[in-house]
Amino acid sequence: MIIDLNSDLGESFGAYNLGMDSEILKFVSSVNIACGFHAGDPMVMDKTVEMALENNVKMGAHPGMPDLMGFGRRNMNISGDEARNYVIYQVGALKAFVEARGGKLAHVKPHGALYNMAAKDKILSEAIVKAVKSIDPNLVLFGLPGSETAKAAVEIGLEFKNEVFADRGYTDEGVLVPRSQPGAFVKGAEYCADRIARMVQQGEVESVSGKIVKIKADTVCVHGDNDEALSFVKTLRQRLESLGFEIG
Amino acid sequence: MIIDLNSDLGESFGAYNLGMDSEILKFVSSVNIACGFHAGDPMVMDKTVEMALENNVKMGAHPGMPDLMGFGRRNMNISGDEARNYVIYQVGALKAFVEARGGKLAHVKPHGALYNMAAKDKILSEAIVKAVKSIDPNLVLFGLPGSETAKAAVEIGLEFKNEVFADRGYTDEGVLVPRSQPGAFVKGAEYCADRIARMVQQGEVESVSGKIVKIKADTVCVHGDNDEALSFVKTLRQRLESLGFEIG
Amino acid sequence: MIIDLNSDLGESFGAYNLGMDSEILKFVSSVNIACGFHAGDPMVMDKTVEMALENNVKMGAHPGMPDLMGFGRRNMNISGDEARNYVIYQVGALKAFVEARGGKLAHVKPHGALYNMAAKDKILSEAIVKAVKSIDPNLVLFGLPGSETAKAAVEIGLEFKNEVFADRGYTDEGVLVPRSQPGAFVKGAEYCADRIARMVQQGEVESVSGKIVKIKADTVCVHGDNDEALSFVKTLRQRLESLGFEIG
Amino acid sequence: MIIDLNSDLGESFGAYNLGMDSEILKFVSSVNIACGFHAGDPMVMDKTVEMALENNVKMGAHPGMPDLMGFGRRNMNISGDEARNYVIYQVGALKAFVEARGGKLAHVKPHGALYNMAAKDKILSEAIVKAVKSIDPNLVLFGLPGSETAKAAVEIGLEFKNEVFADRGYTDEGVLVPRSQPGAFVKGAEYCADRIARMVQQGEVESVSGKIVKIKADTVCVHGDNDEALSFVKTLRQRLESLGFEIG
Repeated sequence: MIIDLNSDLGESFGAYNLGMDSEILKFVSSVNIACGFHAGDPMVMDKTVEMALENNVKMGAHPGMPDLMGFGRRNMNISGDEARNYVIYQVGALKAFVEARGGKLAHVKPHGALYNMAAKDKILSEAIVKAVKSIDPNLVLFGLPGSETAKAAVEIGLEFKNEVFADRGYTDEGVLVPRSQPGAFVKGAEYCADRIARMVQQGEVESVSGKIVKIKADTVCVHGDNDEALSFVKTLRQRLESLGFEIG
Repeated sequence: MIIDLNSDLGESFGAYNLGMDSEILKFVSSVNIACGFHAGDPMVMDKTVEMALENNVKMGAHPGMPDLMGFGRRNMNISGDEARNYVIYQVGALKAFVEARGGKLAHVKPHGALYNMAAKDKILSEAIVKAVKSIDPNLVLFGLPGSETAKAAVEIGLEFKNEVFADRGYTDEGVLVPRSQPGAFVKGAEYCADRIARMVQQGEVESVSGKIVKIKADTVCVHGDNDEALSFVKTLRQRLESLGFEIG
Repeated sequence: MIIDLNSDLGESFGAYNLGMDSEILKFVSSVNIACGFHAGDPMVMDKTVEMALENNVKMGAHPGMPDLMGFGRRNMNISGDEARNYVIYQVGALKAFVEARGGKLAHVKPHGALYNMAAKDKILSEAIVKAVKSIDPNLVLFGLPGSETAKAAVEIGLEFKNEVFADRGYTDEGVLVPRSQPGAFVKGAEYCADRIARMVQQGEVESVSGKIVKIKADTVCVHGDNDEALSFVKTLRQRLESLGFEIG
Repeated sequence: MIIDLNSDLGESFGAYNLGMDSEILKFVSSVNIACGFHAGDPMVMDKTVEMALENNVKMGAHPGMPDLMGFGRRNMNISGDEARNYVIYQVGALKAFVEARGGKLAHVKPHGALYNMAAKDKILSEAIVKAVKSIDPNLVLFGLPGSETAKAAVEIGLEFKNEVFADRGYTDEGVLVPRSQPGAFVKGAEYCADRIARMVQQGEVESVSGKIVKIKADTVCVHGDNDEALSFVKTLRQRLESLGFEIG
């Protein structure tokens, strides 16, 4: 029984520091590294790759929208071709940093608005899947279970990892409760660990309305941007290990 | 006898068109494609790679300074690490576009201020050479004959092509006359063709002061950004072919 | 009888030239100058202001979305506060160039996606109107007749000029036919001049379906980005003058 | 006896927070607000202006180089015209935020590389002084005592405030010891307060080599980007007040 823990890293930019990357790296098995559009810059990317290699975690690209001012979180009306080319550009850039240090790029996880827009949009999802596959057919794509992205990966033939969130609420349809709505966030490290354990063991989660919903969990997204978040990750990791899971 | 003709392409950006890329592609053997820092964007890069493949020319990355407003032509006080990482980022991005379409990246030519600053700066040159080599040791680097970049390539072990300019004047030291000084530009397609023929056949050029200077010419840079430039390239190519050179 | 002719200018950026600004300036009475977000840069802005002053035309700011790569034409999910602050930033910047050369900023016309999104969005429109008024309550706002922007201007108390387009088709509701649909563009300088004359004289336009629709026309937008467009403007201006209108 | 304390504020950007602006505002009399080139964005600028007005401090623009990735600290080879237009653009943008909230822009202080390059460069200094004067001749310019900027201000006729640094070492020529050299930074709040008191009272400072150097101090730059810096400012302010100075 293996479960992957992933975290978004390398989101600093120039003089701006964001995240406790050197700490969270000790507790996760995969990192998604920003590629310069929504966050990250060439100096930050190289340093993050170096730290990831030292900690022996799997490295993925975390391409986002061309919107540094909005941290890639604002929906933008881009075409499929634009999505394809933004992904190739960013994944290619990160892949070069990884390979320049002797590593191997393992996966791609779209960021923020690109992730969320693609989840509901077949054209964007197919563009992203094809872009990733055209770079390297062995790359794995991370995305929402049941999303258009998941469907496109299956149809086009790219390995897909269903991503779940330890601290987020789910609707009856098994998608995330939007950040602006009640129940969007789940509190308490132990309770969150319970929920994740249930997702990875029984493949189900209790929705915000109390319904039991089927969900597939291949990788769990955790945050490490403050002390509380880090402590949360440790609790989660210990629980999963105590249940007999190997993190990786 | 083989001589390479190269041209800078893919310098459009968003709604802005620059250069007659589809025309110049018919007459050159190598193209240097902008990578998004001084010019170019993901859409332009992909389209330029597509056209280059259709025309069967060698593709190179043309990384520049992070200065779109100044078209990468303004010197900036960057460190060796910054030069390294800017090159890895941009070359990696372009390489992904090339490989996504089944092509192979052949060379790297730094652009504008990065090219000129590195030519006189050992630290920048070594950083660039190591960056290119770390991405792929089979990549070829284009640069000024006799420059620090040429020396760094030899020392570190990366194939180097000496680049000459058909329409530029040279000093007694064999370097380009700065654009702001008299003699910077040479006029007349036939006369320029004479000069290039002499460079590639005898390995020498007449300097702005009338002195005969040794110069090594592996690749000739030509421009195709207006009708006159295109006509110039045709004249140059015909001359070289009539002298028995193969362009490639 | 006075009618204003306006055109979007100053859309060059760095090494990229766009538009025949020095030509179109001779035929219009108002210019809308890009402010650096979707197009334009400080050098271009200053030069455009200088030319506008020489030609004695009214100067307006043309603020856009923070999306140079998409020329500000892509919808982005921005908040009212963001719209307000993007407008203040850009209008303030242009106003400084105008005043530094002894001129006076006369109006503001949002660009592209900002213009179109606001036309249908009360929150964005109110934010934009308040932003403009807070800079100078004597500024005039240009926008679509009947839009949310027009309503917000009336309610908040800012002079509004209804803008019509000489070369665009209108729906039965009196709004522009989207660029992607049949009938979006109207051809023929003389026919377009007929339509504009009818709009400014009778306050009506024939819609794409043949229906007569009421429309209010205070200012007519014309383009000058190629020879044909320029010739179109001359035809239009002559027609309006021959009908007894003063351009201004 | 009045002495001004100034601090650089509004250097956050998008999702990135920098500085303890709300704290430092309580202890200074002038703030220099970033304008979007080296740091700051329209949302940050508006919020910083709002806070400055609430704290009743004088507001200045802090224009920088177009280099967000390098935080405006890297020298760039810009022309006088470029310096002029970058300053007009940024100061105009900030002025609009200030006036939109009913305030009045008081001064301008160039940032980082722009400040340091101009200090030694007559062309850049004259361009900056003229730019500021053309926006509003009542604006005050902050800069290094004895610099080209100071001279240009006197010649062109713009009020100039000599800025000194509480935590930096000075050379025998009365200029700052470069950050990369020994003696660049002075430690200890009380000792720094002694030095500042001497500068403002006797108009002299002990250089890094122990020589007594004449220096004119109209405004003292302090930092508030961490707890220690804040505590430093409190010590400095108390000392100056205990010596009978009014801060303002």
